Amino acid sequence: MRDAEYMKQALKLARRGLGRTSPNPMVGAVIVKNDRVIGQGYHHHYGGKHAETNAIQNANESIAGATLYVTLEPCCHHGKTPPCTDAIIQHNIGRVVIGTLDPNPQVNGKSVTQLKQQGIETEVGVLTDTCRDLNEAHFKHMTTGLPLVTLKFAQTLDGRIATSTGDSQWISSVPFRQLAHRLRAASDAVMVGVDTVLADNPRLTVRLIKGRNPSRIVLDSRLRTPLDAGVVQNREAAPTIIATTSQADEKKVAHLRKAGIEIVATRQDKAGKVDLKQLLGILGKRGISSVLVEGGTGVITSFLRQNLADKAVIAIAPKIMGQGLAAVGELDIREVNQVLKLSFEKIYRVAEDLVIEVRISPAPD
Amino acid sequence: MRDAEYMKQALKLARRGLGRTSPNPMVGAVIVKNDRVIGQGYHHHYGGKHAETNAIQNANESIAGATLYVTLEPCCHHGKTPPCTDAIIQHNIGRVVIGTLDPNPQVNGKSVTQLKQQGIETEVGVLTDTCRDLNEAHFKHMTTGLPLVTLKFAQTLDGRIATSTGDSQWISSVPFRQLAHRLRAASDAVMVGVDTVLADNPRLTVRLIKGRNPSRIVLDSRLRTPLDAGVVQNREAAPTIIATTSQADEKKVAHLRKAGIEIVATRQDKAGKVDLKQLLGILGKRGISSVLVEGGTGVITSFLRQNLADKAVIAIAPKIMGQGLAAVGELDIREVNQVLKLSFEKIYRVAEDLVIEVRISPAPD
Repeated sequence: MRDAEYMKQALKLARRGLGRTSPNPMVGAVIVKNDRVIGQGYHHHYGGKHAETNAIQNANESIAGATLYVTLEPCCHHGKTPPCTDAIIQHNIGRVVIGTLDPNPQVNGKSVTQLKQQGIETEVGVLTDTCRDLNEAHFKHMTTGLPLVTLKFAQTLDGRIATSTGDSQWISSVPFRQLAHRLRAASDAVMVGVDTVLADNPRLTVRLIKGRNPSRIVLDSRLRTPLDAGVVQNREAAPTIIATTSQADEKKVAHLRKAGIEIVATRQDKAGKVDLKQLLGILGKRGISSVLVEGGTGVITSFLRQNLADKAVIAIAPKIMGQGLAAVGELDIREVNQVLKLSFEKIYRVAEDLVIEVRISPAPD
Repeated sequence: MRDAEYMKQALKLARRGLGRTSPNPMVGAVIVKNDRVIGQGYHHHYGGKHAETNAIQNANESIAGATLYVTLEPCCHHGKTPPCTDAIIQHNIGRVVIGTLDPNPQVNGKSVTQLKQQGIETEVGVLTDTCRDLNEAHFKHMTTGLPLVTLKFAQTLDGRIATSTGDSQWISSVPFRQLAHRLRAASDAVMVGVDTVLADNPRLTVRLIKGRNPSRIVLDSRLRTPLDAGVVQNREAAPTIIATTSQADEKKVAHLRKAGIEIVATRQDKAGKVDLKQLLGILGKRGISSVLVEGGTGVITSFLRQNLADKAVIAIAPKIMGQGLAAVGELDIREVNQVLKLSFEKIYRVAEDLVIEVRISPAPD
């Protein structure tokens, strides 16, 4: 029971790193001696000290014989910082309680073995699901090489994201749009189709809350993104990648590159568009572990058709529009038993809107 | 504080009459003496004894000087039973606490005046909103002459009620369909369009739970309902009304009437269809205080366009369909600020589905 309480405290600390640790995971650690917390720490930002090191350094008395609670398996390899297992051993910590193993193949149980070999009582599996969920993107990225893909949109109760004339401002409330900016800040990249760029000219930066700007990715097989589009402005604050196909007009590619925009090309898919699966692989290799897909309908539909979306965060506004644009286009479903089955993971109110967080494909093991 | 607790108990009793008291309201009563409940009762069914009388008769000791808690103002007129105010006065009840006044013009404050004139301490306004909500239909019917109109449908998360080929079985889970039958049992009438009759051939009876069958109403301006349709079967268990227009083919009318089906005609609306407002007035005059509208899209859209729907109960299944049939058709909305604004009144899970109860037009005062 006490173990779970201390792990909860470590989880709370871990969440303070939200949006700043990627591609590293968020991690929190608490050091306990005689039922008192004597040190605590978390991973503040990518490249910074690990949670365990911070907790050890923050301890206000000797930690010899103490218990270390850490949400994710400590590292045992030299990365940006020395191995945490070394510090744990050196400081004679008596017991280590780990939320979940780190799927990173450089770690993944090796640290547990090492600590046990050193005679340190080591347990894995306290609040495991919560500790995994905290770093959902890290887990998917490490196990599949692909980023976690989350679709985000706001619709009326009857499923409309815009009127038939394209007006979409605003279906959702300001507080939901702030939540949407929090999702951006917590994602490594945000993605839209070029039609959304042409119709709404979004900047895709984080403005309604304080937070880091994600990379901006435009799916643009025919390179129609204008050089003055919001999404290619302020590149010092947020890099922009235009994803196109190997068949794209070379002159246009050269022109955009000359303007300082990064171009990534994939093979063409059957529809002559960017091959999303290949693109996700490229992004994963670059250390992008999470992508927030903000639309429009064509892009959302492509991700769903190809079963490449993991989650969706959908605002349902207390509004009815009748005919209009839907979030999801043709999925070739003719019978109810062919529909895409989801699970509702979280349901909550944000101001007048209802937010539904949905799991689309099963979480990877 | 104690008053609210006893009123809650009376409300709980009142709800036992759900689906059996209409066109009378549901009412519950509790008699309290020296902080002990000594009698309780509720209105069991239409034409039966009132809650107050039942509570008085169930009392296990003298109720002289006791306090009567009753969810709705007692009656003071001779209806199917003698006035409750007489019984209260005769039994020397010392204090009467009333949830809300009865909007019935034969009562509406008159009983309160009468009790006060007899020197009985009488208070109105404990848990008023809950007491009103309990008899929402009664309040609307009494104040406007029209029944309370509730739309009911089940949709996928992306707002589809059927595939493009018309398959709708089943979007929602069995437990939601049971809830839908509970809604039927609690309604005086259930209504569908003839297109739904022709496409799905529903029986519109209460089968998945125990409960009373509501009257069945088919909107059918061209009298296309087949004589062997499910909705016109078993009329001894549930009467069927076909609502048509004054322009309907007289031979068809005669034919259906000969088969024992009741035909109600309204003037034609602009689209040549049944005038819904007039129809609701006719139904209200017949003592129908609540109508559950079960579809299809055309009927739902007509009610919304004419602002004749009070509420909606919508199941959202954890499914995505993409293109398909929507619950709501063309409302001629071109800009987001023209959408129909609702309020979410209740949100809860029923098995895998999410149920949203929505208020469409503001409640009448």
